[in-house]
Formats: sequence, structure tokens, C-alpha cells
Amino acid sequence: MKQIIVVVGGVASGPAAVAEARRTDPDARIVLIEKGDDISYGACEMPMLLSGSLENPERLRRFTPAGFADHFDVEVLVRHEVVRIHTETRKLDVVNVSNSTVLKMRYDKLILATGASAIIPESLRSATPDVFSLRSLEDARTIQDALAKRTIHHAVVIGGGYVGLDVVWALKERGIRVSILVPKDSILKEGLDEPMQERLLAHLRHHQVAVRDDRASGLEVAPDGRLAAVLTEAGEKIGCDLALIATGTQPQTQLGLHVRIKMGASQGYLVDDGMQTSEKGIWACGDCVEREEAVFGEIIHAPLSLNAFRSGRVAGRNAARKGTGRPARIAAVVKAAALALGPLEIGHTGWTEGAAYKLGKQVVSATIQHRSASSLSPHSDVHVHLVAETATGRLVGCQIAGGLGTSQRLNVVTALIRSGGTVDDLYNVDFVYAPRLAPAHDPLFVAARTLQKTLNASRKH
Amino acid sequence: MKQIIVVVGGVASGPAAVAEARRTDPDARIVLIEKGDDISYGACEMPMLLSGSLENPERLRRFTPAGFADHFDVEVLVRHEVVRIHTETRKLDVVNVSNSTVLKMRYDKLILATGASAIIPESLRSATPDVFSLRSLEDARTIQDALAKRTIHHAVVIGGGYVGLDVVWALKERGIRVSILVPKDSILKEGLDEPMQERLLAHLRHHQVAVRDDRASGLEVAPDGRLAAVLTEAGEKIGCDLALIATGTQPQTQLGLHVRIKMGASQGYLVDDGMQTSEKGIWACGDCVEREEAVFGEIIHAPLSLNAFRSGRVAGRNAARKGTGRPARIAAVVKAAALALGPLEIGHTGWTEGAAYKLGKQVVSATIQHRSASSLSPHSDVHVHLVAETATGRLVGCQIAGGLGTSQRLNVVTALIRSGGTVDDLYNVDFVYAPRLAPAHDPLFVAARTLQKTLNASRKH
Repeated sequence: MKQIIVVVGGVASGPAAVAEARRTDPDARIVLIEKGDDISYGACEMPMLLSGSLENPERLRRFTPAGFADHFDVEVLVRHEVVRIHTETRKLDVVNVSNSTVLKMRYDKLILATGASAIIPESLRSATPDVFSLRSLEDARTIQDALAKRTIHHAVVIGGGYVGLDVVWALKERGIRVSILVPKDSILKEGLDEPMQERLLAHLRHHQVAVRDDRASGLEVAPDGRLAAVLTEAGEKIGCDLALIATGTQPQTQLGLHVRIKMGASQGYLVDDGMQTSEKGIWACGDCVEREEAVFGEIIHAPLSLNAFRSGRVAGRNAARKGTGRPARIAAVVKAAALALGPLEIGHTGWTEGAAYKLGKQVVSATIQHRSASSLSPHSDVHVHLVAETATGRLVGCQIAGGLGTSQRLNVVTALIRSGGTVDDLYNVDFVYAPRLAPAHDPLFVAARTLQKTLNASRKH
Repeated sequence: MKQIIVVVGGVASGPAAVAEARRTDPDARIVLIEKGDDISYGACEMPMLLSGSLENPERLRRFTPAGFADHFDVEVLVRHEVVRIHTETRKLDVVNVSNSTVLKMRYDKLILATGASAIIPESLRSATPDVFSLRSLEDARTIQDALAKRTIHHAVVIGGGYVGLDVVWALKERGIRVSILVPKDSILKEGLDEPMQERLLAHLRHHQVAVRDDRASGLEVAPDGRLAAVLTEAGEKIGCDLALIATGTQPQTQLGLHVRIKMGASQGYLVDDGMQTSEKGIWACGDCVEREEAVFGEIIHAPLSLNAFRSGRVAGRNAARKGTGRPARIAAVVKAAALALGPLEIGHTGWTEGAAYKLGKQVVSATIQHRSASSLSPHSDVHVHLVAETATGRLVGCQIAGGLGTSQRLNVVTALIRSGGTVDDLYNVDFVYAPRLAPAHDPLFVAARTLQKTLNASRKH
């Protein structure tokens, strides 16, 4: 008998799970179900459609649904939503989104790769066609259409996370006046401590992005149904004709609620290191899970592209294997991300000093500025904020901002964090040097050396 | 009584040793002795003087001798050469190079930072003013003067290491026709395996550098005393009016010979992890030592800028401390280097497959090509050659070539190599991703994934 493997969710982790399941069991019947129109696309590249640097949304698709089905010899159902899991009978209720009919589908193994969805605060929900969020390719197309249809005089982006900042810069590149509405200590808060937040805010202001240190409290809609303004908690009214809500994402796990799959603090599925949920026969992967991170062993939600791919592979392998061979294991995650805002690259890895402190950890940090290359070669300023555990010197996190290529340096720290590396280990990395490539003392080396001094001083007390 | 610390050699490691010795013992009498005219300069930046991108050699100097003496409250003797160490009496014979007088100097602690010198094969020694090597700032000035005085029609660079390639590109940038004379399997042989050597050779040829797959056997000098041609082992005569010999360097350790300081296979001083030589009271650091590398524990000569700095600090600290506090320890070295040849960055870390094989190690490798960023953003091709130990999967080395920023990726592998990381560890690095910064799957991730497959296949047999 062929086993039936059903994968729910087709953006990133789901397709990775399907591909690995197919490699593991060439005979299985594999079905990929996606409630939207598209599968397997580059979600991180969607802002390019908004900036105008990319016209055709098709170019973000790695596969069409038919092409994917053909390539991996699987069935693909788009515009179908799994609404209920019957674990006793191993059956699914699947709604055809186009005509609302329901079909029943049997599964032997189930993989949930339902991703995360944008959080829209109640006060910002609106029927106006001028308020958007950006999560799916469908969202991106909708915004792209809106931008093509009429001239936008002023856009307000609500929220200062990675998505919000990506959209700010994309609209700015398109020539639109943009404001970002975010309390200044909240900008990239998950990634940056205050000195680096200041650096980012200065960059935005320098490039004529208006930063409003405030929170959205509501929307004002004109009698014709179009957006008139965003209202703020401080009582301001920011006139605008487009608003984008980017106040965060949450794991999309409603499907698991009634079958009582165990979830974590962020409402993501809890999984073991084989990506299995608390329910036998059900795996989960990608942005809908919470799992262990490598620094303190905390259970966290880490919606990252590569994490989606790797965890999908593990889920696909383990779901498809039939008890033979070694099960696949996922490594603890280090939350690391970066983005480009024109000439500035900014990003982080691990924990901020603020977040570590909230966890009750004793940490110290160093903030330094150095060159990206020799002073005699073209170079940019690189700012590094390095965080380590006081007692052990173990690396906890790093934030970096600078010109082209700067964010590559984060991967060095991530590699060390994963292996429990210390500030001394970072100091001891044999950084390559050539005048055009790097300064004799790499900014990471300078940061490590500075933090060594702080650690030595703190140990004397 | 103030202790007397004498540091011999003033380019890179020596000044680092002086600075750290001064921090460790504010009262010591510290003397820095350098046989050349200059101390504390950027040797890696010297090719900029040849390319014409930098006019003034003074800009390579971090300190003048007087400025350095003043800054660190030490004595600096330039144009003085230590020619003999009397260990029984702790005295040095120091020759004043300008007038050949000899002075005696007492020391309590001695630090040898005499660096490495260019190897000039007997057959290529010549009295013609048109044959050069590039090791000191004085060498760079001499070549710069020669280039300013007359038009060079054709230059031949003999040898294909990092220095030779730097000079090739510098002369090319100046508009001079350049040939490089190196057997093709010898180009950057210490760093590159054959697929990457091919990549480098293709780049040179594409940029009109003539690559002569041959070895120099002699020089032909015209009756007027000027260089006429470089002769090769294959019997060719390459007409030229300038030749640069870059056939390698060796530790400059003649001074240690008669006092029988222990040396390694490359004639570098052997040191313990506190940079102490076999002779009590004598430390050594920088390019004149051999020490342990991190992959296989081999004793190697690793003439690297950062290594010079770090080892100088350790030697300075340990020489200056008076038995109190913890001695400084140096970490094992990973040999890593890179250079920029116009639009190409190329470099390596750890061992090549060929060198590991010669050591009797069983290794496997993967060679991949991937993009530096999303296909929808500006990007370059990145070539990676990754080497790992067959039995354990432990990372042994990595070579990389690609566009701007590529060589930063070497530092990630270096960090992992230092901690005994495996191919799986490289696969598990949470590489940052954003379309303009990196592709969704970083070239290093792709290389790791490819090598995992090879390792798995090799384990099945």
C-alpha cells in the first residue's frame, strides 16, 4: 500500500517538505494543499514589486502549481483550505475556496506548513481599499495594482519591523513620500539595541523618511470610502492616501486548535527535534512552529527563510520514512536577519541586550565603529554592537550596520554562537585581510577586542 | 630596577609587542630596533604605490619612528641591526647600518620580530637595476621610483603567490603589459586546489595578463647593464624591461642560528603558546615563527597580518609581566588569506585538498557555483571549493572566488574550522537572507549541502 502524505501550506517550508518526502519515499502519494493561488515563491522579494524594480510578479514564482506537481510527481491543490483534522480517522476536511464545496481526504502522515499571518490590530481593520498588509504574493499584487491605478501622495507604514522597513524603502524608491509610524524604541526591536536603533533612525531621516515616534490608534475614512488619515495615540492625524500595516506576524495555527496540538507562548506548534508535533502522525515546519534556539535554549518563533527550508526538509524526511534509516534532526536555531535600505545594510543575530536582560541574563556589550576596508581604499563605516554573557564571555548576539557587504559579517558571529563560542573565539578568528576587502583589523575583531576589555574589567569587580 | 625589554623588528609584530609590553609594565625601559628606515607600516598596502592609486609612501606609515617613541614612551633605533645575541650575559651586538659602528646593548627580555624575507633563487640574483622584490617599504619606494623614471613596456612577475598576484594587478592597473611566469599548477598553490586555480587563471587571461606556464631559470642582461629578458626552463626568452621576483618568503632567523634557538621545517622559530622560544628570556612573534595550526595540529609558517598583531601582543605581554597575573596564550592559527584582482575576490582558509592529501589525510571536496545575491538583484557568480575530512565530516578548508564582498564568507568557515566544526555545522548556520544581500541559499550553504551528499555516499561504501 502506498502511504499518503499530505502537506498543508505551499509557500516555502511546505514545498521543501514535499521535495524531501518524495526523495525519501519514491512510491508515496503526496498531496500539497495551499489556500492561496500560488505556491513556492520568494516572499522576501515581494517588496521589489512595490518599488518598481520588478514588474512581473510571475518572476517570484519558482514553480507554477502544475510545474511543481509535474517536477516532484505529486498532487497540488491551490485555492483549497484544510479546515479540520480528524485524527482518529486520519481524515481532513478540505474546502474548495472557489466554490465552498468540502471534500474529505485521507492521510497517513500530515505536515503542517501553514506559515504566519500578519497581525492586524482591531482598531486598524477597515473596509477602505487603501489599507494593506504584505504577507502573500496575492497581497503584493494587490498593492502593486493599487500603486499603478493612482498617484499616491503620502504613504504611512505602521510598524517598524523588517517587513515595514522593506516597504518603507520600496515606496521611497518608487518616489512616494513615506512616513513610518513606530515608537522609536520599537524600531527593529527584536533585532536592535538602542545604539543601533539610533543609527537606523538617523539613516531613515537622512533619506527623507519621516519617522513618527507614536502609535496608530485608528484610521479616518473619507465619505467616498477612501483613506483620509491615520490617527495616533498622541492625538495626531496623519493625512495620507495609503497605509500599510506591518505590526508583526503570528503563527497561523487555528487548524491545530481543536485537535489540541501543543503550542508555545507565541501560539506556534511545539515540535521535537524531528519536527513532530505533540500529535502522532503530524509534523509541522516553517513559520508556524516554535522551537529551541541555540543561545539559552529558549523556545521561540523564528520566521526565517532558511529555517523554513531546513525544517521542511526534516519534516518531509521524517514523515516519509518508514522506520528505517536514521531520522533527520534539526539543529537549534539562531535568529538572524538583515535588510538593505539603499546604501545601508543592517541586521542582527542572536539576542539583543534588552531581550537577554528580560530573560534574566547578565550580559555586557560593546558598540564600536570601524571601516569596512583599508583607509586608503573605498570603504564605508561599519557599526557593530556585540553582546556577550558576563560570567562566561559566551557570545549572545551581534548587530551590525554599514555599507555593501556588511551583513555578511553576521554569519561569522552566528557560526560562533551556534557552537557556544566566546568573545575570545571571535577575537581569534583569522579574518582575511587585503586593503580593498577589509581593514587590517576587521570591525568584528575590533568589537571583540573592545568587549574583552569590558569583560576583564567586569571580572575584576 | 627597571627591566629592559628589547624588541627586534619594527614592521608589524614588533610594534604590537612594544605596545602591549608598555601596557603591561609602565616602568620598563623598552627599545625597538629596526634595521630598515621605517617602522609600523601597512605592508599589504604597498602594491597601491605600484598601481599609482597611491602616490605618497608616507601614507602607509602608521607612526614615524619619533612619533612611535613618543606615543609609547620607548626608544626606537632605525637603521640598526642586531647581529649577535649573547645569552649568557644578556647582551646584544647592534650594528649602526649607516656607519657600521657596533654598540653593545643589555637586555632582560628579548623579543624577536624579524619577519620574513623574499627568497631570491641564486639563478635570478642580478646587479641590474630592473629586477626587484617587494618585501619592505624601501623595496616599494625603489620600484615606485623606477616606474616613475622610465616607461616600462613589459614587466614579468616571477612566481604566483599572493604578493606576485598583487603586483601583477598593480602594474596592470598602471597600464603596463604584464606577464606572470608560474607553472599553472603552482598558482596560489598554498591556497587553491585545481578547480579554483583554473578559475583564477581564466580571470587573469580574460584581463590580458599573459600567463606563462613555465619556470624562470635565469636573466639576460644587456651590455648597458639593463634587463633584457627572463629565461625559462623550457628554453624560452621573455623580453622585458622589468622583473619582479615573488617566489616566496622565508622566516628571517639567521640571528637565532648561533644561539641555537629551536626552529621548525621552514626555519622559523618554534614557540610555545606563550610565544616563548626554546631559549629562556627570548620570545618571538609574527612572520619569523612557526606554530600550531588548528585543523591537524601541524606546525606551520603562517605569515599573516592579524597573526603578527595577535602574536606580538602575546609576546609583549609575557615578556613584560613579572610572574604575576595570568600569562597570555595564543590560539592555534588557521591560515586564511584573500586578495582582490579588480572585480574578482579570491581567497582561502585552512588546507587545500592537495596539501591535506600530502599529509596523509583522507578528505573529500565539493566544488559549486552559485549567485552572490537573489537572481532578481545585481549579483556575481561565486565559486566555492569546500574540503572536509572523510571520516568525521570535519571542515578542513575552503576556497572562494567571486565579486565584491565574496571573501567575507571565508571568515565564516574559519570560525567553524577553529571550533572543530563539521560540514553539518556549516549547513546549519542561519545565514542572513535578503534579496540584495545574499541568495536564499548562500553559496556556503549550497557547498555544505553538496558536500553532505558526497560524505553520505562515501560512508555507504
